[in-house]
Order: sequence, then C-alpha cells, then structure tokens
Amino acid sequence: MFKLIAKDGNARTGILKTAHGKIETPFFMPVATKTAVKYLDPKDLEEIGIQAIISNAFVLSLRPGIQTIKKAGGIHKFMNFHNAIFTDSGGFQKIKDSFYIKSTDKGLILKSPFDGKKQLLTPKELMKIQNTLDSDIAMVLDEMPLYTQSKKEIELAVERTHKWAEECIKHHKNKKQLLFGIAQGGLHKDLREKSAKFISKLKFDGFAFGGLAIGEPEKQTYAMINSQVKHFPENKPRYLMGVGCPKQLINAIAAGADCFDSTFPTQNARHNTLFTSTGKLVIKNSKYKNDLKPIDKNCDCYICKNYTRAHIRHLMKLGEPNGLRYCTYHNIYFINNLMKQIRKAIKEKRFDKFRKEFLRKFK
Amino acid sequence: MFKLIAKDGNARTGILKTAHGKIETPFFMPVATKTAVKYLDPKDLEEIGIQAIISNAFVLSLRPGIQTIKKAGGIHKFMNFHNAIFTDSGGFQKIKDSFYIKSTDKGLILKSPFDGKKQLLTPKELMKIQNTLDSDIAMVLDEMPLYTQSKKEIELAVERTHKWAEECIKHHKNKKQLLFGIAQGGLHKDLREKSAKFISKLKFDGFAFGGLAIGEPEKQTYAMINSQVKHFPENKPRYLMGVGCPKQLINAIAAGADCFDSTFPTQNARHNTLFTSTGKLVIKNSKYKNDLKPIDKNCDCYICKNYTRAHIRHLMKLGEPNGLRYCTYHNIYFINNLMKQIRKAIKEKRFDKFRKEFLRKFK
Repeated sequence: MFKLIAKDGNARTGILKTAHGKIETPFFMPVATKTAVKYLDPKDLEEIGIQAIISNAFVLSLRPGIQTIKKAGGIHKFMNFHNAIFTDSGGFQKIKDSFYIKSTDKGLILKSPFDGKKQLLTPKELMKIQNTLDSDIAMVLDEMPLYTQSKKEIELAVERTHKWAEECIKHHKNKKQLLFGIAQGGLHKDLREKSAKFISKLKFDGFAFGGLAIGEPEKQTYAMINSQVKHFPENKPRYLMGVGCPKQLINAIAAGADCFDSTFPTQNARHNTLFTSTGKLVIKNSKYKNDLKPIDKNCDCYICKNYTRAHIRHLMKLGEPNGLRYCTYHNIYFINNLMKQIRKAIKEKRFDKFRKEFLRKFK
Repeated sequence: MFKLIAKDGNARTGILKTAHGKIETPFFMPVATKTAVKYLDPKDLEEIGIQAIISNAFVLSLRPGIQTIKKAGGIHKFMNFHNAIFTDSGGFQKIKDSFYIKSTDKGLILKSPFDGKKQLLTPKELMKIQNTLDSDIAMVLDEMPLYTQSKKEIELAVERTHKWAEECIKHHKNKKQLLFGIAQGGLHKDLREKSAKFISKLKFDGFAFGGLAIGEPEKQTYAMINSQVKHFPENKPRYLMGVGCPKQLINAIAAGADCFDSTFPTQNARHNTLFTSTGKLVIKNSKYKNDLKPIDKNCDCYICKNYTRAHIRHLMKLGEPNGLRYCTYHNIYFINNLMKQIRKAIKEKRFDKFRKEFLRKFK
C-alpha cells in the first residue's frame, strides 16, 4: 500500500495507494469535519491539487448519521470528493470541551455537540462507523493523555490505547479501507518508545504520532517524534496528527513524518493571517488598504493571480464570505504547494537546504 | 446604446451596450453591495453567465472609499469582474433603517452603517462617487416616497426626484458611463404618469420604475408599471428596481420591463428556499434527508450536476458555508436561466405561452 521512493536524511517521499487514488507523501490534509472544508468546495480542492482530506467519524455518525451516508453510496459520493478521504474520531476529542466527557476501559464517553446526548464510543462502534462511511483510511480509537497528566495516568492511557488498537483491528471489516494505528506516550520518551514498539507490531497500514502539537513546547514535539519514528516501520506511512503550521510541517518532515492534518491553515485564513513565501501577512492591516499586489507575488494560486490585497482586505474588514473564501483558498494552496516543493527537494536530495532556506525566509 | 431586437406583446428583448460588453435584455443582476455577491466569486458569476451585477455607491464611498477603488483602476479592476456593473444609491435607502435619516431639498441625509456618521448625499456628490467608481451604469439620486405616505408628500418627493434628476445630468461627467433616470409616484397613477413623462424627456440612457415592490399589493405594482411604461421611450431600457422573485420577474417582463436587481434569490438561498422548475423547495425539510436527487432535475447548473439534496440539506442544517454557497449558486443560475429562456421565447413570439406555463408549474 505504501512505496518509499526516496529518502534524504530522515525526510521521505513515497506513494500511498488508496481506494481513491495514489497519494504522494509527504502530504497535508485540510479538515472537512462535517464533509465540507469551510469555504472550499470539492471542486476547489481538486483544482488546488489536494490529494486527501479528513472528516470526523463521530460527528458524521450524529449528523447526518451513517445510514444517510451509506444510502448515498459512501462518504465520497455523499460529498462528491474524488480523492482520498481519511476519517478519525479518537482521543483528540479530549481537547474539545464540546465533545469529551471521560474515558473508560470500554471506550470514550462523548457528548453530542448538537444535542448534548451522551454516548459510549467503543473501538468496535468506531470501526463500524468508519467501515460504513467507507472512507479510504480509518483511524483507530485511542485514548490521548494530556501531557500535563501524571506519568501514571499517561501510562494507563497508553495501555488502554494499545488494548483498543487490537480491538479495532479485530472489528475492522472494510477490505478496501486502510487502517492506521496511533501511538501515544505524552512527553515521556520511554512511554513513547514503548507505545511505538507495541503499535508497530500490529497489522496496521500506517502509524500515527498521537497527542502531540497540543500545546507542549515545540522542542518536545520533535523529541517525541524522534523517539517513536525509529520504531515505526520504514515501509509504512507516518502520520503526525494535528499539525498544519508551515514551520512545524517542514520540521516534522525532517524528523520523518509523512502525513498531516490540521485546521490551522483554514482557521488562520478566517482570522486574517495568510501564509506567504516571506512569512505571515495579516491582511486586515491598514498598510494593505491600497496595496494592489497579490497576497504573495511568488504564489500561483487562483486568488493571487486574480485578486489584490486591497480587495481582499476590504472584504475581510466587512466580513464578506468571499473574503473568507479567498483567504482559505490561498492558505490551503500555500501548504499544498509547500508539500509539493518538499517532495521535489527530497527526491533531489536537497531537502535540508530547502528547509533551512524556507525557515530563514518564513518569518 | 440600446437596440430593441424583438417584441412579443409588451415583452421585449434587446441589447444594451456598455463599456464592459453587451447585455441581452431582459436580464437580472445579483446584488454585490460591497463589491461581492455573498458566497459567489466573480468567476462563479461569469461561469453562470451573469451579464451584470449592481453595487452600492454610497456604501463603497464609505468602505473602502472611492480613492481606494480609483487607485485600483475602477470598480471592475478592484473586484475583478469583467462584465457590466451598475451602481446606485438613492431613495431605496429609505427602507433601510441602518442608512436613512431624512430627505431635504439638497439631498438625502444618510448615516454610515459602519460608524453612524451622518452625511448629506447630494445629486452632485452621488454623481462624483459613481463617476469615480467608473461603473458602467450610474443611477440618479431620487427620493423614493413610501406608498403609505400622503399624496401630498408623494407629490413633493416626485418633484424633488425630478429636480435631482436634472442636477444629476448636469454633474454626470464620466463619458464611458451610462446614466439611468428613475421615475416615482407611489401608487398614484396620475403621479406615476407625470413622473414618467418628466423623466423620459431628460437625456438618460435608461429609465427606472422606482419605489415599487416594497410591500404594496402586487396588482398595484403592475398597474403602476403599466401607467409608466407607455411614457418611457421604446428605444431605451426599462429597469424595475428591487424585483427578484421568479413570478414577479416574468410578470414584469410581460408588462414591458427589461432589467432587474434584487437580493431576493440570494437571501432566499441563505434561508433554505431554492427555486426549481416546479416551484420553491425548502431544502431543510426532513423529507430530503436521504434524497439523492439534485435540487432540480431540470437544472444544468454545476450544483445540480454534482450535489444531492441530501448533502446540501446536511450542510445547511449544520450552517456550513459550502451549503450557503451551493444554494446561492443554484438560485442565481435558476434566475439567470429563466431570463435566457424568456429572451428566447420573446424572440420566438411565444412569450405569453411560456409565461403561463411557467406560472402554472412554479408553485
């Protein structure tokens, strides 16, 4: 399912085969929690060249419900997106007060963000949901410990995550769907290693670093990736969940990660922060009032080819939906294009130089 | 500037030449008050085949300010729309509490919806704003009486409208820009006729029925159009301001109107009401939960070709921006396509049959 094409240091490029096409790694997934990336249609995503998106299995099980998506012929047909779709719904719900209640041996007790109704989400139930949604890649149920919890608590969460991982494999029935495991361990090197070793022995199609980039010091993030990456098999993709900041992406790729998702680029866009080849640009800033340049003169996206900073600033100042759309489009294009450039740099064995140059320019 | 191509009863089809292309009449303009049709980019509008849009001169004079638009090279370059752009900002502000304070002999006293600041908008000032925005068609400043006002008050408003019309002509300096006059008269046939006669003698490139479709009984709307249309010259376009409901559009065309604008289709879309060949469809309705049909099986728009009622309902139920976008796109396409069909029917001398058929089917 995964073919490694080239390595440059720890950075890798490869091809992940899914039921909806091949994904070149490293890649970034925009988040389509409810089957929609806010302000971008599937057509936009395909025009940008997005290879995969990620949706939330638990949310979809509540609205519109898995039967509606099943009747539509699966999540791809339901939303009309033709490339790969990941689904997940695990421990990361913990950082969302609107969802998480508590964790038990059997599963996560979550509440519906729509009506507050409590529900036990077991490994078996989550597999059933994802099997029915018919996404290309399902993620296991995990318990994500917060790094601020005691080591004992984190250790228990790791054990529970391991137990659930085995249950997920047992209940995963969709043959066309890949299944990725998730390793945890907080900020404890020994627990991280232990978890990576355990999870990587199970029959997964890919492996995720869970519980990182949730507020811990950035140095620690990379230390934890380093402690786990060496235990993950070379011939499987490695997914760093929840990362979408340009600098973190490039550094995580340097550490050996292949796959990412985050609302960071889309949320930043909606809050006026745009990514450019020279760093962040806050479009609402008054200095852009009469600026007829594109967001980024080095960007080839439809927005940069057609709209000025002055126009986008005006729309954003007045809260016009088109402003949100233009900003979102640009940020997603920027990240996707960064991934393309990174893949090329890895193939051409100049990734480290590219990374340093990028970090020097991206203020 | 306007060439009449065919007539069928009072319904007409023709071509209005503007600095940004020819417009086939009858036509409908989506409203882009702040240089953006909510949820549709200029690219979408051009894809749909929208020939013209209308923006608000007073609003643009406040945000971003006419200098910003002038520096960008005019409103077309500012927003990157390549077809015709109308601008207006007259008496219709009266029905918007957020704008209107009062009317004096000199002009309208308006307040900024952004900071509440009062401002006198004179005919001269409005012409200067529109000349600078460089829209293709400018509308005069008028005083729109409410039909609930006394006949004496309406008569005074009509006289003021006439005086301002002459001042607008005097101060209109942009040679590439067309200028349309507006006739008023409340629901008084004699005042309507008097106003149409007066305005049609002035050197305008088109003539508008003002102060209609603002809540009066629909029968009265057509009676007022009928009383004015006969005084408007045949060789100039006739603009019924503020109408966008499918039934009213087709009936107004039957009465001899050529040009329309309204937020009706876009606002309806955002409130879940979609137009179809068999009438209105409320997409949030639970009966569409698992409905895999398009919004309208007879519609060729991108949305109907790619998304199901079930998916759009799901997005609208959860307030996802993409839902608003899909619904807006469809409704604007529907109205634009209706205009196309109407033009064809007029040319083929079967407009009345087409109209009756449409009204029978459109519940």
